[in-house]
Amino acid sequence: MRLSRYFLPILREVPKEAEIVSHRLMLRAGMIRQESAGIYAWLPLGKRVLDKICNVVREEQNRSGAIEILMPTIQSADLWRESGRYDDYGKEMLRIKDRHERDMLFGPTNEEMLTEIVRAYVKSYKDLPLNLYHIQWKFRDEVRPRFGVMRSREFLMKDAYSVDLDFESAVVAYNRMFVAYLRTFERLGLKAIPMVADTGPIGGNHSHEFIILASTGESQVFCHSDYLGMDTPGSDVDFQDPAALQTIVNRWTSLYAATEEKHDEAAFEAIPEGQRLSARGIEVGHIFYFGTKYSEPMNATVAGPDGVERPVHMGSYGIGPSRLAAAIIEASHDENGIIWPEAIAPFRVGLLNLKVGDAATDAACEAIYAELASRNIDVLYDDTDERPGSKFATADLIGLPWQIIVGPKGLANGMVELKRRADGTRETLPVAAALARITG
Amino acid sequence: MRLSRYFLPILREVPKEAEIVSHRLMLRAGMIRQESAGIYAWLPLGKRVLDKICNVVREEQNRSGAIEILMPTIQSADLWRESGRYDDYGKEMLRIKDRHERDMLFGPTNEEMLTEIVRAYVKSYKDLPLNLYHIQWKFRDEVRPRFGVMRSREFLMKDAYSVDLDFESAVVAYNRMFVAYLRTFERLGLKAIPMVADTGPIGGNHSHEFIILASTGESQVFCHSDYLGMDTPGSDVDFQDPAALQTIVNRWTSLYAATEEKHDEAAFEAIPEGQRLSARGIEVGHIFYFGTKYSEPMNATVAGPDGVERPVHMGSYGIGPSRLAAAIIEASHDENGIIWPEAIAPFRVGLLNLKVGDAATDAACEAIYAELASRNIDVLYDDTDERPGSKFATADLIGLPWQIIVGPKGLANGMVELKRRADGTRETLPVAAALARITG
Repeated sequence: MRLSRYFLPILREVPKEAEIVSHRLMLRAGMIRQESAGIYAWLPLGKRVLDKICNVVREEQNRSGAIEILMPTIQSADLWRESGRYDDYGKEMLRIKDRHERDMLFGPTNEEMLTEIVRAYVKSYKDLPLNLYHIQWKFRDEVRPRFGVMRSREFLMKDAYSVDLDFESAVVAYNRMFVAYLRTFERLGLKAIPMVADTGPIGGNHSHEFIILASTGESQVFCHSDYLGMDTPGSDVDFQDPAALQTIVNRWTSLYAATEEKHDEAAFEAIPEGQRLSARGIEVGHIFYFGTKYSEPMNATVAGPDGVERPVHMGSYGIGPSRLAAAIIEASHDENGIIWPEAIAPFRVGLLNLKVGDAATDAACEAIYAELASRNIDVLYDDTDERPGSKFATADLIGLPWQIIVGPKGLANGMVELKRRADGTRETLPVAAALARITG
Repeated sequence: MRLSRYFLPILREVPKEAEIVSHRLMLRAGMIRQESAGIYAWLPLGKRVLDKICNVVREEQNRSGAIEILMPTIQSADLWRESGRYDDYGKEMLRIKDRHERDMLFGPTNEEMLTEIVRAYVKSYKDLPLNLYHIQWKFRDEVRPRFGVMRSREFLMKDAYSVDLDFESAVVAYNRMFVAYLRTFERLGLKAIPMVADTGPIGGNHSHEFIILASTGESQVFCHSDYLGMDTPGSDVDFQDPAALQTIVNRWTSLYAATEEKHDEAAFEAIPEGQRLSARGIEVGHIFYFGTKYSEPMNATVAGPDGVERPVHMGSYGIGPSRLAAAIIEASHDENGIIWPEAIAPFRVGLLNLKVGDAATDAACEAIYAELASRNIDVLYDDTDERPGSKFATADLIGLPWQIIVGPKGLANGMVELKRRADGTRETLPVAAALARITG
């Protein structure tokens, strides 16, 4: 993409309304624009990041055997009356009357709708296990939306729903998502720690929040520091092998890890002193087994091998891609701007032409641009007539992992400069060597 | 994808509520499920088709130089009060009050919001031309939603907005979209004919509807039959060359073509008799130049080269991917089911194992499945224990372009059967030859 034809509205001033660093940086980098309180438009750079996050989430959901669907945003209130949640949900639910005065709502989540789909089509244990997910906009009418897309009213959510015949197979489904989440966060460049969460009236220990550590996190968390070095499962993990999944889950739940709400000071003190980690954390995922909570009142039953009808056992599994964009920035930035992990950088490479209009510099940049394009590498080519200092600042602010800096002086010796955003290292080397370094 | 692990809820009976063939087939093929009147969930097969349509639309928007963003579904009423449309829009607009009693709405379109974004960031003629698009769910509260996703209340729309300094450059932007639309519909397997549409108070002739011919179309259309054989622009068309674009637009608007509303019987009669085409049509796209209709009241101005501030000239360009899924079926089906064009088929290949459990047949199918996967070809492997007749019916109903039929009898001679859905031709040939035929 040529920056001269792109839409990248960089803000040079720090926006006053933004309280946390990710919000400030997303506004300054031209990623988002607030349209109403807690409601944002994603500008081109932000949209690219959001898409890349969604693609990682999607690939790992698919790998685990979950199947993608797409449910609508607007739901009928009647569906929520069946589960009893219409009255319970409170003011966070955006309630709507359509032109025929029917009660509708903008879905804050989809347990009811998914249960209705299961009830309509799934009749036999032979149709199970099943895990359906979608990535769709949700609305929760927070009293005080804040922190940009970290706590917005309209937000993007990947929500998956597992459907199984009984508790034992539901646990396998739960473990599949547990492992898929470990892989997802690892690929997003995050070290997420699963922490036991409240299961409410269901009981049991099949509810985990995945928390990343960041100094601006919303809550205090406590865990064994070995979590930071723990291996995540590889892409060869067999999601059809319940024993293999259980082994991974056991390892990842073997050490102490808890949020404030579930914190047990005595258990924490039992960790050897040098390995106690107490830090701020941001919730980036939540998985939850809820049994027959919806299938019973909504009568979503299947016939078992014995022919007897029974309500299905379900769980739900959420990740918020819009919130993740902010959470990743909280975990990865410096005073100059964002530092994107390569997997979700809006462009992998920034190509900085320091003297637009100089024939040799232009020609060198065009050649590099064409070469990267031919290798399907996303590159943002700064072909504007801004000063070099401004180009450096923009490239650092928007956090592109690699910067190729091309100017007439270096080119006279056949050299360009290659900068890594992550550690700021710069080296001078021939064009071919710079490209080889990037394409690795 | 193995059908045994997929979620494909085929209906054997013809749904009573569906009046048109695309609606019936989408329900029967397990593509969609109605959740409320005019509101649908996209089941896995439907979601795949919708994604493929969106990808074609996106690729052609990007090729033309348009830039993707993503605006929210919920908008502030105040924005619409600025343009004066809040009161004009009528009951089709889904009006909402949030918990603070603020007037909000579910966007039926985004001219106001886009104009607000332009107003916020675009200050100079040097930032133009600009074309921003998004693919987002819209809501129009139709009195009587019907025909499935062809006329639904919640629907997916690609809407692009061009922003230019003056009328002349706005026409170039219009022509870019005109050409991009020709290419988009061609790639979707549709023959779409641009027809002059009403421009309302703006006047001029820069508004076209793109219409495909289908016997179940909603309106009567009249055109010269040469449109059916007209070449669409190739992928090498230069969107930076205004003259080249104008030549294409001139050719595609040189012959008579009109919808009922704009029909001129005398002009139609002037076409030589054998070349007059009168048929039913479905609108699949609409492009529209509206000048300063929003930029003036909303004060979206830029400084021209002379330093004088002036309101920008804008146009909007819509395609409905959810409606297109139905329109394509209307245009491409037979008595057995859907006939997908290859570009948007949910799977390019159906692999039918006629004797699951037979070691040789299973092994042959697994080998074919692995081979297609290694070539990144989407394949739905019917590994269920259904009867062959049922498998044939399903493959035809869901309309996969290629079917590889594998049974023990053929395999004894090293042969499989290859069927093309489009024309029903079947041939018996060795596995390698069948794969070569599919992969071209």
